[in-house]
Amino acid sequence: MQTETNKRGALEDIVVLDLTRVVAGPFCSSILGDMGAKVIKIERPKTGDDSRAYGPYVNGESAYFAMLNRSKYGITLNLQSEEGKKIFLEMVKKADVVLENYRPGVMDKLGLGYDKLKEVNDQIIYAAVSGFGSYGPYAMRPGYDILAQAMGGLMSLTGAKGGDPTRAGNAMGDILGGLNMTIGVLSALHARERLGHGQRIDVALVDSIVVSLENAFTRYWDTHKLYVRNGNAYAALAPYDSFRAKDGLCIIACGNQKLFEIFCNKVAEKPEWIADERFLTNVLRVEHMDELKELIEGWSKNYTVAEITDKALKAGVPSGPVYDLSQIVKDEHIAGAREMFPVVKHPVIGDMPVNGTAIKMMETMPHVTKAAPLLGQDNEKVYSALLGVTKEQLSEMEARGIV
Amino acid sequence: MQTETNKRGALEDIVVLDLTRVVAGPFCSSILGDMGAKVIKIERPKTGDDSRAYGPYVNGESAYFAMLNRSKYGITLNLQSEEGKKIFLEMVKKADVVLENYRPGVMDKLGLGYDKLKEVNDQIIYAAVSGFGSYGPYAMRPGYDILAQAMGGLMSLTGAKGGDPTRAGNAMGDILGGLNMTIGVLSALHARERLGHGQRIDVALVDSIVVSLENAFTRYWDTHKLYVRNGNAYAALAPYDSFRAKDGLCIIACGNQKLFEIFCNKVAEKPEWIADERFLTNVLRVEHMDELKELIEGWSKNYTVAEITDKALKAGVPSGPVYDLSQIVKDEHIAGAREMFPVVKHPVIGDMPVNGTAIKMMETMPHVTKAAPLLGQDNEKVYSALLGVTKEQLSEMEARGIV
Repeated sequence: MQTETNKRGALEDIVVLDLTRVVAGPFCSSILGDMGAKVIKIERPKTGDDSRAYGPYVNGESAYFAMLNRSKYGITLNLQSEEGKKIFLEMVKKADVVLENYRPGVMDKLGLGYDKLKEVNDQIIYAAVSGFGSYGPYAMRPGYDILAQAMGGLMSLTGAKGGDPTRAGNAMGDILGGLNMTIGVLSALHARERLGHGQRIDVALVDSIVVSLENAFTRYWDTHKLYVRNGNAYAALAPYDSFRAKDGLCIIACGNQKLFEIFCNKVAEKPEWIADERFLTNVLRVEHMDELKELIEGWSKNYTVAEITDKALKAGVPSGPVYDLSQIVKDEHIAGAREMFPVVKHPVIGDMPVNGTAIKMMETMPHVTKAAPLLGQDNEKVYSALLGVTKEQLSEMEARGIV
Repeated sequence: MQTETNKRGALEDIVVLDLTRVVAGPFCSSILGDMGAKVIKIERPKTGDDSRAYGPYVNGESAYFAMLNRSKYGITLNLQSEEGKKIFLEMVKKADVVLENYRPGVMDKLGLGYDKLKEVNDQIIYAAVSGFGSYGPYAMRPGYDILAQAMGGLMSLTGAKGGDPTRAGNAMGDILGGLNMTIGVLSALHARERLGHGQRIDVALVDSIVVSLENAFTRYWDTHKLYVRNGNAYAALAPYDSFRAKDGLCIIACGNQKLFEIFCNKVAEKPEWIADERFLTNVLRVEHMDELKELIEGWSKNYTVAEITDKALKAGVPSGPVYDLSQIVKDEHIAGAREMFPVVKHPVIGDMPVNGTAIKMMETMPHVTKAAPLLGQDNEKVYSALLGVTKEQLSEMEARGIV
């Protein structure tokens, strides 16, 4: 919770120029903004970020855009024009970080690549995120999240037994890419103190997916056998899966022998399973996973998810429901105590809940500092504060299509 | 690539005491270690990190443990003993960061909670990761990755059409939790300069999953309708899905009208689809997604994945294969140019490939600085350097079960 004592932002001395669009980059800059950085989102005049055209719309404004772009200031600038480039370079002199997610090479073609920016400010940290990264044979390929999930291997691990490779139902490549970009920026800020200058950071969605697979590659290197998709079951532990209850699916996760015995004795009340020679050890249970699941479901189908999880948790066995979104947004822990859906007052949309912070910092609690900007909403404020541009000059620049 | 000019570590001035086990915390500290932080992993004497018991084993050592614990020093310490606690507090005086992933309250019960640690070193940054976080009604519940995926909503979005909620096939909750923990630590290091002291950071796997769902909640708030799982299709764009080819699945992702038209004209060579009144706009295509998929698969099933992706990429249409792990580890971009599987020489396992870095920093390239420690491997070096303990004292401490 944000209180009187923790309302300072961890990054309140940092200025970020944010050229990113859609998900990965804007997710990174929303984290930096929630931490108090002054994030200036720079959009194309007239149209802005592509995601301003993505639904859902509320009162004619994109709630999609508004969610991912809270805690940022918004200005417009035409980077195709010579004057626009000059203005951008003037702003770079006053900034700490530049974020972009163009296809590799676009910033260089504009004359605004890292080599140019560091000439005007060698302290600048330049971070780019793209589908395949800025170098390597696929660097110039268009990179969408689904391609990263497909080529990075996440899809090959995900899906029902005997079913097709399945993508995670969110833009997981973009999210992981945005988190890695954030880590790169923060560690470069730290390194700047000792190096004496900034640096360039390059994050690829595909690389981000590959690293997220943790030990899947380790297992592959060991056996050279491919993973066999198996729904919610886990190749290393059993029972550790979803099980069908009277009114939905329920998770039971027995991480060790003791938990399995408690589960049999006190939850399912089937002590005979413990002595069953197919289930004597975790290794045997993994081997006979399907038979064990059938037995457990023969029991679990007679109870509701709530009955099972209550009984399991009281006995100390890890268990929980498979929530849908309607259950999450009213959950007393997630939506309540953890405050994962704070409400922001948007000038057009009105009160809108947004995703909160997953990084609870007790002295500098990240929080939504402002609603997302309308297109060009902060032109006057930002151009005046940063470059001393007057209202009249701004109108004139607007008439010429510069902002 | 690590070169002569970028081999400095972004965090080489930082000392981390790492009490974490298994995945989420160790993933965080491996990133910090790859960035040059001096990470001292502290394990229970005799048994160590639980994941030392997880396969695959190579020459009797856990490759699972070795992958996630590269770039760290390893010492043993009995935190149950009064002497062990004292030694830990002495080390806290010389450290910047303490990481732990015990169940909430365990460190306090040991007398080593944040309030105690900041008494001996107010600069310390204390970061904990757990299933449900350190506060809220579920704080004391056991938290496994599968529970976070189930209760955070990722499973409800993932899966085949008409199929069950499906977990991502990796420990995605742990990975996201580890990344958020890293961001918390790095931003607290930055804030420390201005605050004049450290702080406590609290990360929950469930919160981390919730935030990763990006606009799924935004859509829910708008319509109050639940997401209908639909395999690899995307509710906002079509065609943007996997399609069956002669030898596997192939991704085609048409992000806009122009790409769809190029796809029809130059890739599938079915210009008649453009004029088909069911497919005139993206909105109509999404509405008639299944019919469009049937038509596309009628064409794609006659070609190999390579034939389709080559043709599509030449025409500028985003496309790619659904890789399995065997294809990724030999891919010229991912394994080649992006160096995602560097080989580490482990004293027992021998040469082992590990996951590389997804954060390419051009002046301080993260890289594997050393192989994972054997249990207690660095006792002598670390206790001598940090606390001036002699070899004789160490033997005596070992005999008494302190290290």
